[in-house]
Amino acid sequence: MVSVSIIGGSGYAGGELLRILLSHPKVTIHQVTSQKFAGLSVGVVHPNLRGVTNLQYCKLEELKPCDILFVGLPNGVSMQMMEHFTKIAKKVIDLGADFRLDSEEQWNEWYKTPHLLPHLIHEFVYGIPEINSESIRHAKWIAGPGCEAICSILTLFPFVKHNLIESKPIIIDAKMGSSQAGATPTTSSAHAERSRATRSYKPTGHRHTAEIEGVLSKFNPDIKIDISATAIEIVRGILVTVHAFLKPGISDKEIWKALRAEYKDKPFVRIVKEKHGLYRYPEPKILQGANFFDIGWERENRGNRVVIIGAIDNLVKGTSGNGVQCMNLMCGFDEKTGLEFPGLHPV
Amino acid sequence: MVSVSIIGGSGYAGGELLRILLSHPKVTIHQVTSQKFAGLSVGVVHPNLRGVTNLQYCKLEELKPCDILFVGLPNGVSMQMMEHFTKIAKKVIDLGADFRLDSEEQWNEWYKTPHLLPHLIHEFVYGIPEINSESIRHAKWIAGPGCEAICSILTLFPFVKHNLIESKPIIIDAKMGSSQAGATPTTSSAHAERSRATRSYKPTGHRHTAEIEGVLSKFNPDIKIDISATAIEIVRGILVTVHAFLKPGISDKEIWKALRAEYKDKPFVRIVKEKHGLYRYPEPKILQGANFFDIGWERENRGNRVVIIGAIDNLVKGTSGNGVQCMNLMCGFDEKTGLEFPGLHPV
Amino acid sequence: MVSVSIIGGSGYAGGELLRILLSHPKVTIHQVTSQKFAGLSVGVVHPNLRGVTNLQYCKLEELKPCDILFVGLPNGVSMQMMEHFTKIAKKVIDLGADFRLDSEEQWNEWYKTPHLLPHLIHEFVYGIPEINSESIRHAKWIAGPGCEAICSILTLFPFVKHNLIESKPIIIDAKMGSSQAGATPTTSSAHAERSRATRSYKPTGHRHTAEIEGVLSKFNPDIKIDISATAIEIVRGILVTVHAFLKPGISDKEIWKALRAEYKDKPFVRIVKEKHGLYRYPEPKILQGANFFDIGWERENRGNRVVIIGAIDNLVKGTSGNGVQCMNLMCGFDEKTGLEFPGLHPV
Amino acid sequence: MVSVSIIGGSGYAGGELLRILLSHPKVTIHQVTSQKFAGLSVGVVHPNLRGVTNLQYCKLEELKPCDILFVGLPNGVSMQMMEHFTKIAKKVIDLGADFRLDSEEQWNEWYKTPHLLPHLIHEFVYGIPEINSESIRHAKWIAGPGCEAICSILTLFPFVKHNLIESKPIIIDAKMGSSQAGATPTTSSAHAERSRATRSYKPTGHRHTAEIEGVLSKFNPDIKIDISATAIEIVRGILVTVHAFLKPGISDKEIWKALRAEYKDKPFVRIVKEKHGLYRYPEPKILQGANFFDIGWERENRGNRVVIIGAIDNLVKGTSGNGVQCMNLMCGFDEKTGLEFPGLHPV
Repeated sequence: MVSVSIIGGSGYAGGELLRILLSHPKVTIHQVTSQKFAGLSVGVVHPNLRGVTNLQYCKLEELKPCDILFVGLPNGVSMQMMEHFTKIAKKVIDLGADFRLDSEEQWNEWYKTPHLLPHLIHEFVYGIPEINSESIRHAKWIAGPGCEAICSILTLFPFVKHNLIESKPIIIDAKMGSSQAGATPTTSSAHAERSRATRSYKPTGHRHTAEIEGVLSKFNPDIKIDISATAIEIVRGILVTVHAFLKPGISDKEIWKALRAEYKDKPFVRIVKEKHGLYRYPEPKILQGANFFDIGWERENRGNRVVIIGAIDNLVKGTSGNGVQCMNLMCGFDEKTGLEFPGLHPV
Repeated sequence: MVSVSIIGGSGYAGGELLRILLSHPKVTIHQVTSQKFAGLSVGVVHPNLRGVTNLQYCKLEELKPCDILFVGLPNGVSMQMMEHFTKIAKKVIDLGADFRLDSEEQWNEWYKTPHLLPHLIHEFVYGIPEINSESIRHAKWIAGPGCEAICSILTLFPFVKHNLIESKPIIIDAKMGSSQAGATPTTSSAHAERSRATRSYKPTGHRHTAEIEGVLSKFNPDIKIDISATAIEIVRGILVTVHAFLKPGISDKEIWKALRAEYKDKPFVRIVKEKHGLYRYPEPKILQGANFFDIGWERENRGNRVVIIGAIDNLVKGTSGNGVQCMNLMCGFDEKTGLEFPGLHPV
Repeated sequence: MVSVSIIGGSGYAGGELLRILLSHPKVTIHQVTSQKFAGLSVGVVHPNLRGVTNLQYCKLEELKPCDILFVGLPNGVSMQMMEHFTKIAKKVIDLGADFRLDSEEQWNEWYKTPHLLPHLIHEFVYGIPEINSESIRHAKWIAGPGCEAICSILTLFPFVKHNLIESKPIIIDAKMGSSQAGATPTTSSAHAERSRATRSYKPTGHRHTAEIEGVLSKFNPDIKIDISATAIEIVRGILVTVHAFLKPGISDKEIWKALRAEYKDKPFVRIVKEKHGLYRYPEPKILQGANFFDIGWERENRGNRVVIIGAIDNLVKGTSGNGVQCMNLMCGFDEKTGLEFPGLHPV
Repeated sequence: MVSVSIIGGSGYAGGELLRILLSHPKVTIHQVTSQKFAGLSVGVVHPNLRGVTNLQYCKLEELKPCDILFVGLPNGVSMQMMEHFTKIAKKVIDLGADFRLDSEEQWNEWYKTPHLLPHLIHEFVYGIPEINSESIRHAKWIAGPGCEAICSILTLFPFVKHNLIESKPIIIDAKMGSSQAGATPTTSSAHAERSRATRSYKPTGHRHTAEIEGVLSKFNPDIKIDISATAIEIVRGILVTVHAFLKPGISDKEIWKALRAEYKDKPFVRIVKEKHGLYRYPEPKILQGANFFDIGWERENRGNRVVIIGAIDNLVKGTSGNGVQCMNLMCGFDEKTGLEFPGLHPV
């Protein structure tokens, strides 16, 4: 059995990591930290785990060596301790933003704070198994992508790689659930204000732009992304509606071919483009708890717009589940281990 | 007192029309029809009106002459009876689609059925008081705009008229509540399926494209609109996120100037672009029951995208309230009469 | 015009008070205080009022004399300043709990803190216009009831007064929206936790027991109330399901008679017990923004249980609207003035 | 591998049965019927199963012999075909109401139609593993309980069996999600009407009274149950708030003892009565997809009321999951097999 520890297990992604790892047949959870809840059972914070485990939170200071260390800390905090983490754990999977970008300059530009460990940035592998599984397999340190970023990247990836769309404009209109804002209560997260909100909380300037362009520019250096993010009345889930423009002469067949080339053998990707039924395109509603990324598309009859639609559960494929998928690759396990839950319907 | 009758008063927009007109100080509701509920009190269908009125539904066949006739019938049905309606009423406000487009050809193209009264199409005035109040004042027959159309048109109008944005691409990403699909139960409207859906029900090919381009092309003949509509977990409300591209050199000041020029004196338009507070941009959440159209915008730092955000209550400014606003103009009343309800917070 | 000031206008009930009073034809809002938002427009906090008023918050210290003073302060704070308030205003309507109970002993028992102004307790009239409109008319100082209390009292009142039910057990199973917990963000109000909660937050020991028994024991001194309160996924609204037991031989006719005797002429009470339609019993869904109290009942075929159902909007008939109704009586206005909004359907 | 077939696999409980059985390591799904969707993949109806299985619906007429047959048919339909089912399958688990009651008379009284197979009623074992696992282990035919019934029975069972509460009144105030009304769209299930409803859809006369009294009267023949059911804004889940009265002198210790005696070793029962955290009592929110029954209680300080709170997912412990749990016992598998999913937080 591989021993796994989790830094920051009282947040929402940490809770999902616990849920997934507790039923993972090849690992044991060694330690899980929470400065606030140290000494208490994880079930106090994540009530779904009551009766499922007796695991208790410990302090960060009590952290012992382990095989795999998941790090779930606020942006800018992870880098303060990463050197220590890399010593204590054989492999590290960081779910935060600190080591996601391509360079120190990018970090400074988008996060407006100096990076404390710039020399480590290039040591981290950006972890999207559907794109770079080989690098992940051999990686020691993984930077898990942002939830909005991974959904957008996977939605655009086949279209960019196969040169189907113009390099700009590419507009990502993202609809987001409340859980992505984290577990700390704020005025904007209060139920009476947030309930049924349709709130343009980030119309421009979304930080994940850097990650998305970072990955996609490897396939087309001219790529230019514009994001708008709207908070809607769901707890879990992201839907991205990508508005892009097909290059002249691109046929439906070429689109299908590109999608199949990239995603046919990927266990967590489903192409959803149905003629019948209620769920003809991807929807986060049915992905809660599942590690799937669903993708669909439709082209405009009048003109060359193509609408590409991607959906994930931000707490699973958007963070914890994707992290476990990376871990599976790093440990030589079947990629799907522990991630088989298919989601619920209706819900 | 002006006597008003309503054709089709059991639907959701019909219910709002009843609510608004019942408290309107200058009109009396003469008749309200419903083939299904004839003989029953309107409170059976619209429970908010119980104890507020004793009005009962009658059959369409019982319709008597009146001053103002509101017509709320399914697309394609209104035109079957419009000649009769124009004889029985001094003025007609049609809330359906049949007389909204500019020509018979447009109708045939977008609605795929022959138009029965093509000679009447040009007799109807498309009713958006913020744009053509003078024509409305003198109109005999009004075609009320589609709810998604009016929200999109008002969001784009100052930018197109003042030549601030490129004529394409202009992408309208619309988030829609469940009430716009009407009161007839369907599999897709069932609560367990529709609840918390984030459903791309019309990624391309939205019919309101015709209306929007119809109005805006008067200001810029090259205008080209692309719509995607997503159903989200709200009952009432539309948020449109418009992604457009500023012409070279356009300053923030010019945008403010255009918005103020068009909307400063409009009683139902609010420019919402706040630095502080939770509601920094338009949100349909707080517009339920109100006749406001709220508009805001933000420009991207990297590049020339501008995101323009518009919000309405689809059942008020999107249909019934806007119809009453037209009626007020047609009758010489103060434009705001009966439409003062400001909406609720929180809700 | 009567001049009205509001202490504590940034909370949810304060916002509704502003909304209602801004359209009240016989009063002007003189001042509205908020220690946190002093100097800012009320529209920053209550976005539905943007463009409706230019009113700004002031500090409590700046309070000037006025005709009517509404006090919306946390429990235990109101009594610290009440002597000052009674000097500065001709009439005071306190929306908090400090002067609701019958005696100092009761206060100490239920609120576990000493009462600072015990001599004033008996000077306040408990304000439920449907029960004691005469006292209210002549009152100088009003204690507005708790939202759960007023809904429960009005639900039980005809049954207790007319001696239709056993004095115990009387079980009040209350379903509550999130707005009643107030505007201060807490862990329990965070959207991801509170959304779709069905949370037994007060299974026993509800403080409003004291108010309810206080009022009803005047009609039956043996009355004994048991409350359980469950938080459900609504923002506004209370539904109380009262489980009581009919005295032997009580007929339906006697129930109808009692209800009509008490409520027939009450402008804000509707008896809702329909054979057809979707809304056969009271529902808070359609009461949002309205000052109605809806009541219905059904008796069990096997045995003598009667289920009595009451619904209100906690922010309107549960606080601010009921306060304005009291003010109308105190000022000699028509009881309904400013309170005509009937609610929305669907919503 | 045991071969399992499902009659009626397009409904919501049928979908959950598919989800659970598809990941069950000891069974294979042989056939699943749907008259409406025969020939189509189950993923068309249950989109969470897309890519998880290639299983297609067949017609009822095509049903072949199998080891275990789950029957999910409307009330009154199951009995029309049960003789056939009992011939074709070694064991039958009926999820409908037809064989749940104790006698033909009870059926006629509560369901108002003649029973077609009265001689079979006594051959069915009512399946609640926490109460009668031994009978289930040896049963050939199981009648699965109603979802509201199983939740209420398990909530009351230790209190009745251990003689802690008075035999009456016992009031069950049930809060219900929309999925329990089934997948067929109706006016009352339409999103705009059902969304955020707090609807007293069955204040008295609930049919599950018969099942609940049927089971509990074996422990106390005088037991008398009163149910009120309210539809609330959740899709999945039932919360029952039971209001009962402790016999004189019953201590907390005796309650704990009774609960532990009955539930300590039950893998799907959790006693939830926490001093800290947000989820101090049972809540259906965190049970979605899980087979748990959570129970808690609180006693009133003034008087002898005890409030007992029970929660389940109506589609899992309320139907399909409980059915699989019965199957596990009947087949000699570990009771928990296939039912390990613990639910999600937050959701």
